[in-house]
Amino acid sequence: MTSHAFKMQSMIPGVNDELEVEKEPNASETTDFTPSPLFERVERARRRKHKIRETHITLAHGSGGKTMHELIEALFLDYFRNPLLEQLEDQAVFEVGHPEGAASRLAFTTDSYVVDPIFFPGGDIGKLAINGTVNDLAVSGARPLYLSAGFILEEGFPIADLKRIVESMRDAARVAGVEIVTGDTKIVQQGGADKVFINTAGIGLIEKPVRISSAAARPGDKVILSGTIGDHGTTIMIARGELELETELASDSAPLNLLVQEMVETAHELNALNGIHCLRDPTRGGVATTLNEIALSSEVCIEIREDLLPVREEVKGACEILGLDPLYVANEGKLVAIVSAEIAEPLLEKIRKNAAGESACIIGEVKAVPQGIVAMVTGFGGTRIVDMLAGEQLPRIC
Amino acid sequence: MTSHAFKMQSMIPGVNDELEVEKEPNASETTDFTPSPLFERVERARRRKHKIRETHITLAHGSGGKTMHELIEALFLDYFRNPLLEQLEDQAVFEVGHPEGAASRLAFTTDSYVVDPIFFPGGDIGKLAINGTVNDLAVSGARPLYLSAGFILEEGFPIADLKRIVESMRDAARVAGVEIVTGDTKIVQQGGADKVFINTAGIGLIEKPVRISSAAARPGDKVILSGTIGDHGTTIMIARGELELETELASDSAPLNLLVQEMVETAHELNALNGIHCLRDPTRGGVATTLNEIALSSEVCIEIREDLLPVREEVKGACEILGLDPLYVANEGKLVAIVSAEIAEPLLEKIRKNAAGESACIIGEVKAVPQGIVAMVTGFGGTRIVDMLAGEQLPRIC
Repeated sequence: MTSHAFKMQSMIPGVNDELEVEKEPNASETTDFTPSPLFERVERARRRKHKIRETHITLAHGSGGKTMHELIEALFLDYFRNPLLEQLEDQAVFEVGHPEGAASRLAFTTDSYVVDPIFFPGGDIGKLAINGTVNDLAVSGARPLYLSAGFILEEGFPIADLKRIVESMRDAARVAGVEIVTGDTKIVQQGGADKVFINTAGIGLIEKPVRISSAAARPGDKVILSGTIGDHGTTIMIARGELELETELASDSAPLNLLVQEMVETAHELNALNGIHCLRDPTRGGVATTLNEIALSSEVCIEIREDLLPVREEVKGACEILGLDPLYVANEGKLVAIVSAEIAEPLLEKIRKNAAGESACIIGEVKAVPQGIVAMVTGFGGTRIVDMLAGEQLPRIC
Repeated sequence: MTSHAFKMQSMIPGVNDELEVEKEPNASETTDFTPSPLFERVERARRRKHKIRETHITLAHGSGGKTMHELIEALFLDYFRNPLLEQLEDQAVFEVGHPEGAASRLAFTTDSYVVDPIFFPGGDIGKLAINGTVNDLAVSGARPLYLSAGFILEEGFPIADLKRIVESMRDAARVAGVEIVTGDTKIVQQGGADKVFINTAGIGLIEKPVRISSAAARPGDKVILSGTIGDHGTTIMIARGELELETELASDSAPLNLLVQEMVETAHELNALNGIHCLRDPTRGGVATTLNEIALSSEVCIEIREDLLPVREEVKGACEILGLDPLYVANEGKLVAIVSAEIAEPLLEKIRKNAAGESACIIGEVKAVPQGIVAMVTGFGGTRIVDMLAGEQLPRIC
């Protein structure tokens, strides 16, 4: 195989080796970590005010990981600061009231898509642009209603390719049950942009009084993952042709809104709507980064078990060749749900009945300490810290 | 002066010369055109189903003019078709209802910004990105509430420049009274994008029962323009340094929401809320293209008077040198309002009291025929058709 051209920095933070600690032989699988000075140091470092160390934008600023968080918190959040943005969820949730009526609770989100290549097994930039924004709405418990679409096209881009993308967007919107109601087109001269970039923004209506938030995970909660990890990122990597691999692998790009609606209905029937604590779709930065964001926001420890992580053989193989960890590889149709233990099993059962969640499973649980830490019980019975993605793994993955 | 590098096609359609007709000496200024076989031919041609003739994207597809309309109608509208999108307004307006409450009427819009240069007299890409989306909401009569911001950044872009843009967005958002509540950042490798592109989408609340639409112009209505034309486009052209001109000219980028709210209040006080028929901000394609869109949608003739058009001397001069017509040059803080004759004067008075409308004036009126035509009574007393922008005048103007 050939080496791939884009930057790859270690995904495993430098501290990992020294933090790899053998579990005490008689410790049960669910025993909490014992906070140690080392954890406290890690915690303190993480609580420091974010600062941008770089003078120029690097690919890592778009990674979904640590460097991107620094940019967001030290720049965008600092300047735009307001209570909605500060929550740093994948969507803003607010009430909009008719002067003479009750307020409606809405979710609002946006994402730009710059994936390269624009066509790949299992999808294309258009399908991603619909499903990605649908999912960012869905994970707030909202029913996605309306999408906007903004195209930035490079002069000379084939209209046949644009048609294919637009057709794919139409089809994805139909599957998800949303409508594209407003749009914009800008053209830049040849060389001023790479083929096509798409931005979608979306509006959803939160109909049930759910309170889903990255800050809502509680000790004792179960961590549900809706299916195999790393499919999308690995597919894109292979589609770039920089690996001489042939697989049947395809992107998992899919809308999660119907799955989430079913979960909300089930919780409602169980009279446990408040039992759905966190929902997230682990895209850039993978499941590891998403779990870290939740652990930090909720001030809990999330402990997952390596032997429970569903990973396709092809993904495992490709990631091994590349020295990647599927935990950090992007997904585009997967859900991480952190729910109260009482409703975990009935929800899991419901999720497994949905085509988007057939291989769903519980991969771990939430502990009280050490706060802000994701820990993984490894196949060898040890436990190691799983940090947020550092550096850039795969630029233009979505 | 040097010639400028970007494409410029004739803005005056080929038919114009043969349509330049002397007014009958005793015709009053407000006499309707007499429909003739020629007008009928023009009308028929315009009603034909749009087809894309090109196989590849050209700069003209982003012009705001005819070629862009063809792309939108033959591709985006054809595939995404739904009642909201079909109205082809600058924003979608829909009701969102709380299950147990009254519905709220919302406006939703998006625009991507690719302006080059990113900093220019009177503003920058960030200010444009806020005001442009605020204005697309405002012209529906909505009070803009929340904006999203999606950044596409080129690897190597100076973080100091990004800070300057973000600061400018913060300031513009404050002036307009909106909040940026959700966002996204993508980075592409060096050469994959030109510095920075910004998408903003916005949500506004329509509190008063206005029915503003491009299709609502009625014969007898007055056409109000809130100020001088062509300031933004001319400023950008000069800022590119392709003209050896030094002027005091600055972009007119400004939010129009407060101006529109005042107009709505005034009409409400006059018990004539339905007298505000069309509101538009004439950006890409200029006042000429905006008026053509209204004339086509409303199936009316809009007759404007050349001697009433407010144009700064510097804009006139620069446009003369370039062979451009200020009527086709982009504005970023101007309003075209088509209102019933009864409330035109009180509205105009109100507009003039707002800093964004000091030099507002009535530039023409709406006639019944010839439908879909914008006509201009020239300084010489003749009347000519003012067509929609053809080709591309200024790529990356916003």
